[in-house]
Amino acid sequence: MSMNPCDIIRKKRFGGELSELEIRAFVDGVVDGSFADYQISALLMAICINGMTDRETLALTLAMAKSGDTLDLSDVPGVKADKHSTGGVGDTTSLILVPLVAACGVKMAKMSGRGLGFTGGTLDKLESIPGMSISRDIDAFKRQVREVGCAIVGQTAELAPADKVLYALRDVTATVDCLPLVVSSILSKKLAAGCDVVVLDVKTGSGAIMDTPEKSRQLAQMMVRIGNLSGKRFSALITDMDQPLGNYIGNALEVEEAIDVLAGRTQGDLKAVALTLGAHILRNAGASGSVDEGMAMLEQKIASGEGLRVFGDMIAAQGGDRRVVEDTGLLPKAPRRVELRADRAGYVTRMHTSDIGNAAKLLGAGRERKTDALDLSVGIVMHKRLGDAVKRDDVLATLHVGEKSDRIGAYNLLKRSIEIGDAKPEPVPLIRDVVE
Amino acid sequence: MSMNPCDIIRKKRFGGELSELEIRAFVDGVVDGSFADYQISALLMAICINGMTDRETLALTLAMAKSGDTLDLSDVPGVKADKHSTGGVGDTTSLILVPLVAACGVKMAKMSGRGLGFTGGTLDKLESIPGMSISRDIDAFKRQVREVGCAIVGQTAELAPADKVLYALRDVTATVDCLPLVVSSILSKKLAAGCDVVVLDVKTGSGAIMDTPEKSRQLAQMMVRIGNLSGKRFSALITDMDQPLGNYIGNALEVEEAIDVLAGRTQGDLKAVALTLGAHILRNAGASGSVDEGMAMLEQKIASGEGLRVFGDMIAAQGGDRRVVEDTGLLPKAPRRVELRADRAGYVTRMHTSDIGNAAKLLGAGRERKTDALDLSVGIVMHKRLGDAVKRDDVLATLHVGEKSDRIGAYNLLKRSIEIGDAKPEPVPLIRDVVE
Repeated sequence: MSMNPCDIIRKKRFGGELSELEIRAFVDGVVDGSFADYQISALLMAICINGMTDRETLALTLAMAKSGDTLDLSDVPGVKADKHSTGGVGDTTSLILVPLVAACGVKMAKMSGRGLGFTGGTLDKLESIPGMSISRDIDAFKRQVREVGCAIVGQTAELAPADKVLYALRDVTATVDCLPLVVSSILSKKLAAGCDVVVLDVKTGSGAIMDTPEKSRQLAQMMVRIGNLSGKRFSALITDMDQPLGNYIGNALEVEEAIDVLAGRTQGDLKAVALTLGAHILRNAGASGSVDEGMAMLEQKIASGEGLRVFGDMIAAQGGDRRVVEDTGLLPKAPRRVELRADRAGYVTRMHTSDIGNAAKLLGAGRERKTDALDLSVGIVMHKRLGDAVKRDDVLATLHVGEKSDRIGAYNLLKRSIEIGDAKPEPVPLIRDVVE
Repeated sequence: MSMNPCDIIRKKRFGGELSELEIRAFVDGVVDGSFADYQISALLMAICINGMTDRETLALTLAMAKSGDTLDLSDVPGVKADKHSTGGVGDTTSLILVPLVAACGVKMAKMSGRGLGFTGGTLDKLESIPGMSISRDIDAFKRQVREVGCAIVGQTAELAPADKVLYALRDVTATVDCLPLVVSSILSKKLAAGCDVVVLDVKTGSGAIMDTPEKSRQLAQMMVRIGNLSGKRFSALITDMDQPLGNYIGNALEVEEAIDVLAGRTQGDLKAVALTLGAHILRNAGASGSVDEGMAMLEQKIASGEGLRVFGDMIAAQGGDRRVVEDTGLLPKAPRRVELRADRAGYVTRMHTSDIGNAAKLLGAGRERKTDALDLSVGIVMHKRLGDAVKRDDVLATLHVGEKSDRIGAYNLLKRSIEIGDAKPEPVPLIRDVVE
């Protein structure tokens, strides 16, 4: 068995199964540069077309997880949990479930990277809270998890650096949407981050990477299978992204909605998904006997105000102004609001969710390039959901517009993204499936 | 239709047929650098696995042919012909057929690159003739073809530069042996070189790139199909490479054998293949009514000595010592000879032809890297052919050894490459097939 790049590439080109040793040689070569960019991209393409077995995907995931720093959380007592979403619009479940789960006694230790997307990532959202910092060294991160029960910080450790190289190449060689590569990319970072329990939120629909339930199910099943083979406890939910999950889309706006949910003021889909994800963490961590019992525990932490308090503790521990949990007026506000009104009566029959996200991006809420600056105050508040009846001139959405927003572009794109028809559409289930 | 590299790569990844415009954008991008190496290699891998239609292969070939200089031979009167071999051991047909065909009135205009291989290419062989130069500018090249009837020179024009980039990447990404890529690589250079008639010699067997007759036939058929679609007249022979074609392997040694054939002193497989290729050129150029008639014309040019005279004219026109055609003693000679003898009686049952070629390379006759210096005097003379009866201690081959030769390595490799068994093997036809 040769560890020559060409031999490894050739084997996959002709549909062979790569050995663990060959996959390790590949990942080592990605990190140390002995696999050249053009060799990596040739192998990635061969993987995309010819696939990978579970054994290969597991080996790739583990090799990538070990390609850089790995967090050792064993000196933090108790079960440590993490959560990952494949990404959507108005998807701010982390800010809700992290403090609620921590309030139930399961440690939430999230170390995130910043991404590109419709809005900023969880880190950007947190930075809209006055004074809040997401930079913590590893010791401070662990201390906060131990003392407060949760932390959400930026990646200081170099977790899974092989993924950074691979992702950058996939992005420019049309090899992003390939199941074993998506799975190993997500899981390698989660495994390197050292948690015991991980719950995955795989989105499906018009605002998701995987646009059909079938593809989302394949991704969820493969992630749970490979994740559990790695020795951790993984579950995945497949949840609807045929419309924005929450009604608030933006950075400060999403923090505001998360606080509203934690304070018990807001019900709806965002809360339902956040709590279901949290309940799976509690069950997987052994903190509850069942998902239903976990749901009840989390509802109780809302009712008692403990979730909100833990969120405040986390904000304070990271240097932020904890009064924000009592007064969302402290969050940055956009200078101008523009209403989008219905030009006919009927029912909301369809939302082009990724275009709603793109409208938020045009306002300045999300990044096209890593170097783009965000306006944390801008975004969109939706007033209608799929199936809602609307009258002519009803307000469908409010755009929160900043100085640098492309207001016209965002308005027109948003308008085209919400379809109104005569017939009330069939409702689709919010939680499509659970994979464990 | 987008000309974005990722869109083009994605289309081929999912098995689509690339349009002529997309293929031209790719080849332009290869030459101007707007397609990055890692994007090129990803697309090459997708082509290897998902294939290309004839329409795509033709478009790729034409775009590559137009990617640099193209020779215009229209001011040279008459039909201009070229010949290409996929390469083998002891394969020096060009030096025989070029002067013979020219003696029959069809112009042979060969502009070659130097390759890597078991022995040097045709250019290296010619350089073993004292004084001979293969550097000619385009005007001098055309003048010589007009006046002498033939020329074999090094590439001064930049023919099909896209191929140089693609080949270098294919070589390090396990994407060499892919039919549409092999075809477009060979044909693009032939089309850019401006001849009207091209005959291809596709080798098959243990010393050939295509090791089975089936693969060789596919390659030959595709080359002739695509070549004829381009508007030129192409034919291909599929010829045996289960043993060295000629008995002399090396550079000066192969010139010597070519002169022996032109002088009528040597019969056998090398002569048979050279004359059959030449006869196809004569027939395709309209200089003979049939291949058989062409064979007779070429035999007559040997008998009359005209072929040898034209070879001498070509040598003289390129600054070489034309007396070599009368006295091969003027060619460089290796200082030492070592005989390989049979250690048992029997029949020659098998030759590992590529290893015989590698043995010649160990002696210094061929290049591993572009920068390697050759010893033009060294090589191997074979004394037995497949199916020949041998007695114990018969000389199987003579190694012509130079100062820097790896004599022991070459001897041992050569010894292992010639198998002697009890049963006389079935003879295989020398010319397996003709594709037109």
